[in-house]
Amino acid sequence: MTTCHNERVATWFAQLRDRLCGAFETIEAEAAGDAPPARFERQGWERSGGGGGEMALMRGRVFEKVGVNVSVVHGEFAPELRALVPGADRDPRFWAAGISTVAHMRSPMVPASHMNTRRIVTTRGWFGGGADLTPCFPFDEDTRDFHAALGAACDAHGRDHKALSEWCDRYFHLPHRGESRGVGGIFFDDLDSGDFEADFAFTRAVGEAFLTIFPALVRRRMGLPWTDEQRRALLVKRGRYVEFNLLHDRGTLFGLKTGGNIEAILMSLPPEAAWP
Amino acid sequence: MTTCHNERVATWFAQLRDRLCGAFETIEAEAAGDAPPARFERQGWERSGGGGGEMALMRGRVFEKVGVNVSVVHGEFAPELRALVPGADRDPRFWAAGISTVAHMRSPMVPASHMNTRRIVTTRGWFGGGADLTPCFPFDEDTRDFHAALGAACDAHGRDHKALSEWCDRYFHLPHRGESRGVGGIFFDDLDSGDFEADFAFTRAVGEAFLTIFPALVRRRMGLPWTDEQRRALLVKRGRYVEFNLLHDRGTLFGLKTGGNIEAILMSLPPEAAWP
Repeated sequence: MTTCHNERVATWFAQLRDRLCGAFETIEAEAAGDAPPARFERQGWERSGGGGGEMALMRGRVFEKVGVNVSVVHGEFAPELRALVPGADRDPRFWAAGISTVAHMRSPMVPASHMNTRRIVTTRGWFGGGADLTPCFPFDEDTRDFHAALGAACDAHGRDHKALSEWCDRYFHLPHRGESRGVGGIFFDDLDSGDFEADFAFTRAVGEAFLTIFPALVRRRMGLPWTDEQRRALLVKRGRYVEFNLLHDRGTLFGLKTGGNIEAILMSLPPEAAWP
Repeated sequence: MTTCHNERVATWFAQLRDRLCGAFETIEAEAAGDAPPARFERQGWERSGGGGGEMALMRGRVFEKVGVNVSVVHGEFAPELRALVPGADRDPRFWAAGISTVAHMRSPMVPASHMNTRRIVTTRGWFGGGADLTPCFPFDEDTRDFHAALGAACDAHGRDHKALSEWCDRYFHLPHRGESRGVGGIFFDDLDSGDFEADFAFTRAVGEAFLTIFPALVRRRMGLPWTDEQRRALLVKRGRYVEFNLLHDRGTLFGLKTGGNIEAILMSLPPEAAWP
């Protein structure tokens, strides 16, 4: 039963990866003009403790650097982690699968964005994930539509959008700067309502919402002109993104500590950044 | 007596700052040609708990971004830090002064470098600091001369250069990459031999050695041509510098946790960096 659950979850993540890559490649093709459009390149990796993943990376005209990673790993948590992971104190074995995408855009007018969802199974099993938007020059309309798309996913599955949005704001916060990373989104973890089908359906809905709204926002802004000064502001904004991911992001730090694939973990870092 | 010590130390740091800024400005003037040479801009800051500091920052043709910070702060360590800082368990009051410089160079042929020394006084008092060299394209001659300069300072003051060099190698290491940050230097901490004058003299000698050797290395390489490809390699190398400072550097993390001046702490970050 659990194995069947795991297979369905892993299959969903792989399918969502294919659809995200397809959506982003379509945008690149629209923007390419006469030049051959950028395409994703995929690279697999294996985890020494069990399982592995696949990175997909594209460098294009619109998407300066966009990665979509999937992984399915299993093994045993190291002793120092067993007390920290729910259900791992009774049995250190785990299974985990996830999808993560981070898009850094060439234009300062197009927002960067991130989405990830994951399922972790120990003696317990739960979903987690989220999506957030990081514009350099926020448009209220984009912020509103991004929140509305995620809010609709929450509403359709009986989740408290306000609570998950506030969780996102707390999480994507740079305390040393007193700044938010972006304009928010949703964040959830330890999602185990007791109804696997309901939790899995909500997790899929978050992916579907992102797949719909983010490409729409990219198309809305990708034609806008920008200045060198605005591009410079984008590089500085990305410096904050680097600070958050390396100083505060639990996923990044957990991955580095548990010997995850370095290139996959740090794929979230921007292609270029600046500190004034 | 201690107050007199503290005043002498703080005065030395300020004088060394002036001399470093002068040495770097002289190099900029040599490289400026007809254009007005870059100069340091200074900005003071105050610490809410007591004391403050001064940042000096220059953006030039040779030094793409170089900062020289001094600070003299005092107050009481927060309860959670008292057990971590030597001598603070008995009395939380402290006094600390330091100088820190980080130079990120425009040319990929000129090494980046860092030097800092500090004195901390609780119920105990000690010196710490170090200097290291981070070339993108290392020249054996430069590495040798940099180590020789610091080795001479160690030898003249009866310090074990090999031990301090190995400490540097252990410290400036990126475990998640299995890489060194650069080609090494020296690192020391908790230096309290019982002879303040001897420890202070060694600390000054580290500053003097850096003041001599680093400008010499800059002059040796600043005239070399470089390619766009080499400049790109420099930006990637700087990405590793960012990773080290935000993931591993105790000084950075300690400063951010103790509410230090953000701009001063993060002045070590490069003006531009890239992740391929």
